[in-house]
Amino acid sequence: MDNQDERFRRGWERLLEVDAESGGRVIESLQDVAPDLARYVVEFAFGDMYRRPGLDLKQRQLVTLSALTTLGRAEPQLEVHVNAALNVGLTAEDVVEALIHCVPYVGFPRVLNAMFVAKRVFEERGVSPLKRA
Amino acid sequence: MDNQDERFRRGWERLLEVDAESGGRVIESLQDVAPDLARYVVEFAFGDMYRRPGLDLKQRQLVTLSALTTLGRAEPQLEVHVNAALNVGLTAEDVVEALIHCVPYVGFPRVLNAMFVAKRVFEERGVSPLKRA
Amino acid sequence: MDNQDERFRRGWERLLEVDAESGGRVIESLQDVAPDLARYVVEFAFGDMYRRPGLDLKQRQLVTLSALTTLGRAEPQLEVHVNAALNVGLTAEDVVEALIHCVPYVGFPRVLNAMFVAKRVFEERGVSPLKRA
Amino acid sequence: MDNQDERFRRGWERLLEVDAESGGRVIESLQDVAPDLARYVVEFAFGDMYRRPGLDLKQRQLVTLSALTTLGRAEPQLEVHVNAALNVGLTAEDVVEALIHCVPYVGFPRVLNAMFVAKRVFEERGVSPLKRA
Amino acid sequence: MDNQDERFRRGWERLLEVDAESGGRVIESLQDVAPDLARYVVEFAFGDMYRRPGLDLKQRQLVTLSALTTLGRAEPQLEVHVNAALNVGLTAEDVVEALIHCVPYVGFPRVLNAMFVAKRVFEERGVSPLKRA
Amino acid sequence: MDNQDERFRRGWERLLEVDAESGGRVIESLQDVAPDLARYVVEFAFGDMYRRPGLDLKQRQLVTLSALTTLGRAEPQLEVHVNAALNVGLTAEDVVEALIHCVPYVGFPRVLNAMFVAKRVFEERGVSPLKRA
Repeated sequence: MDNQDERFRRGWERLLEVDAESGGRVIESLQDVAPDLARYVVEFAFGDMYRRPGLDLKQRQLVTLSALTTLGRAEPQLEVHVNAALNVGLTAEDVVEALIHCVPYVGFPRVLNAMFVAKRVFEERGVSPLKRA
Repeated sequence: MDNQDERFRRGWERLLEVDAESGGRVIESLQDVAPDLARYVVEFAFGDMYRRPGLDLKQRQLVTLSALTTLGRAEPQLEVHVNAALNVGLTAEDVVEALIHCVPYVGFPRVLNAMFVAKRVFEERGVSPLKRA
Repeated sequence: MDNQDERFRRGWERLLEVDAESGGRVIESLQDVAPDLARYVVEFAFGDMYRRPGLDLKQRQLVTLSALTTLGRAEPQLEVHVNAALNVGLTAEDVVEALIHCVPYVGFPRVLNAMFVAKRVFEERGVSPLKRA
Repeated sequence: MDNQDERFRRGWERLLEVDAESGGRVIESLQDVAPDLARYVVEFAFGDMYRRPGLDLKQRQLVTLSALTTLGRAEPQLEVHVNAALNVGLTAEDVVEALIHCVPYVGFPRVLNAMFVAKRVFEERGVSPLKRA
Repeated sequence: MDNQDERFRRGWERLLEVDAESGGRVIESLQDVAPDLARYVVEFAFGDMYRRPGLDLKQRQLVTLSALTTLGRAEPQLEVHVNAALNVGLTAEDVVEALIHCVPYVGFPRVLNAMFVAKRVFEERGVSPLKRA
Repeated sequence: MDNQDERFRRGWERLLEVDAESGGRVIESLQDVAPDLARYVVEFAFGDMYRRPGLDLKQRQLVTLSALTTLGRAEPQLEVHVNAALNVGLTAEDVVEALIHCVPYVGFPRVLNAMFVAKRVFEERGVSPLKRA
């Protein structure tokens, strides 16, 4: 196994750990149009970036959520990464807080659109960001 | 003291804690053109958002750095918040990691421009993100 | 009633005046995921910004329509604010003019997408931007 | 026929050549809301820009695909112009390459979203970007 | 004089009325690199858009200021159009209000950067947006 | 030499071919703040993307110029890639045409700002996009 394969293998391992099925579906759906693009997502985003030391996975998901919220028009990716955030140990409340924290920097529309994506994911997974009384 | 004043007071306290002088300079420079805008920054961004529970200040700065990097064209604000990141206990290495983590989401140009802002702040404060041997 | 409540009350009053039901639905849909975000929309966007003196409501809606068109990917908010524009006395023709005026600054794609949102709102309300012969 | 009409006529001719039916549908759908906006698309985008010398139509479509991918939130326009790219002689593989080439500049989310638009167009037209063995 | 020349002439007239010297400098600075781009600014932005009926020049400048603030990274254009806003009868206070009104939609960084451009223009022209006591 | 080194070596070779000194300066300036970011630029952008088959280097530079123009706020990268465009055989006139072609998609401000970057590069290299009589 050469290094290129090794990057892919490590990236795939991390993708499964972080994004589980929703990430896998994206990779799958690229196979008949741009399999190399899928390979770069695995190798570069997950094999290179997500394997770096320094920040832990929870911190990396906070950075990811903020980038995707700010970017706008990244609902499919945001759905993957709200799931990922919950997978690596952030709570639904943490996710909501991270999105609300973006308001002063990016305004309400970007955050509202991101929040409705998060809401759908929370409902699918049966979790609530609201503290019980 | 009514609640409006209270929001401002709490916001100002937080701004001093987080952004120290660079944040203060922004507020000062607005006084002769739009003092209300300065007030909203203090009341809303710092008095409301930065006082919320749930995420600690280090987590909030990661979210902020990512939002400003993604937004692009926010160098003055990024300079304030790289300083803020260091003020609340993130290391220069953490800042560099957060910016690099944005590459797959926003591409190299946004991250390169943000990194050069961070570089200037590190030099001014005499800190280095590079691990010594 | 303290000042925080007062900001909310004034914001809610203004929201009802400007955005009527479509704005109310947004607030409602946030209650089980991020009620504080809904509160900030009411307090800050409507209680603080929309109550400021200086520009009248029609002028403020022109600014809002342009910001949302330029931002892109803000269809839900644009739908609310095309409705709001008509509610405060702008005509369908004014809305169309404001969007067309954005073309040289933001290009055709943003304006086309915004225009199709406006078209849907006009149809729902049974108004036309076209001058009758 | 005066020059204004001439610009429209030339633009319409070019639009038919480049975008065929998908472009025509956009023009059609604007007739009852903002016919002048449709006219500007024809006159300015197609009559002025697309008739310029210097770059050929294939080169112009590469530039267009990259602009729309980078812009984000321009799926309807991207659908028109993936079709246009194929109409003027670029292959499905060229389109995929152009989108992948954008990754380092704009990040994966923008490119993934654009790629799924391209995928739909390829399926509708029964073409594949994958080299056969 | 044919229609193309007529569009240019009308555009130039409007540009002089609205943007006076700062707009003229932009046109001038394009002559040795892309004179056709300068011509399109005059013909399309000023000859077509700014001559449309429906909204008056003050309303059009509100839309322009909001678009440029939201766009970000458009300081040179914003400088031209803050001047233009004052030229067509908006007050410095109106300009400040329009920018502040954008905060909930686009966040503080975009508005702060725009406000500092406005501040410079106000100082050059010796006007103040602050109401005297 | 393992594959990671091989990707870097191939990327560096391509970077020298395409971006020559201006690209090299960017890499150099990252060494004391984020050398890994420099490595990713070389490995991923140049070693992976720019080595792909399918589009030639001139076509790739058209895509790059359009992406950076559309992105906005990427002057340092645009300067590198206007140089790169000329290095791989596009003419100054081609560069101007590519930027002008973006106007209908992204509006004048982004294109004007990009054009002034191109103008500076042309002057430094003593080339002109204007056809001689």
